[in-house]
Amino acid sequence: MKALLLVAHGSRRKQSNDEVILLTDKLRNNCSQQYHIVHAAFLELAEVLIPDGIKQCVDEGASSIIVLPYFLNSGRHVVEDIPNILNGCTALYPEINISLAPHLGASSLMMDLLIASSETAKAL
Amino acid sequence: MKALLLVAHGSRRKQSNDEVILLTDKLRNNCSQQYHIVHAAFLELAEVLIPDGIKQCVDEGASSIIVLPYFLNSGRHVVEDIPNILNGCTALYPEINISLAPHLGASSLMMDLLIASSETAKAL
Repeated sequence: MKALLLVAHGSRRKQSNDEVILLTDKLRNNCSQQYHIVHAAFLELAEVLIPDGIKQCVDEGASSIIVLPYFLNSGRHVVEDIPNILNGCTALYPEINISLAPHLGASSLMMDLLIASSETAKAL
Repeated sequence: MKALLLVAHGSRRKQSNDEVILLTDKLRNNCSQQYHIVHAAFLELAEVLIPDGIKQCVDEGASSIIVLPYFLNSGRHVVEDIPNILNGCTALYPEINISLAPHLGASSLMMDLLIASSETAKAL
């Protein structure tokens, strides 16, 4: 079974974390053909943390897990912190294939998203 | 003339700010039909700051400016800080129409972007 784990930074502001959870619910409904399991996890400041998110996917029967960083830039969190945490997880679950997607700013669809978003601007 | 001002948070890490500048260059090439002027600005920690980005657009002849927050969540920066700064700018340039686009997480294209990005994941 294929799992998708959306990983956000996590915020002290509960509303920001709730937005990530709601987005993940929407994502689950939109990619049920590609992924049997879809969860959210956070790098810090919010639960569940990444190792617990990976465990949740494994417990539900995932044989492969794609980790999707919900980050715009390729900063330290994306380049070092998340891979380091995931390397710890691959050591715990050597039978599970864990893959890491690029940060969102690298997506070829980002241009379309930015232009579409600009067209929904409202006057101050 | 219509201007688009992409506003990112700004980072102490130069590479992150450079990514925003490169993305803005790409955006300029992709939306020349909709916008005559396209620039980047930062909320903090990097130059140019938002008021200077607005001034740059005005100096180049913009009559309307759409500000596009390069933020995933509707946190304090998007909900309070950026509108507050822009309200200061509208007081300075009352003849310019300044509009504010929603944060990127609100885009209807975000689902497509997330799913496409997950399909480019690489094994650890």
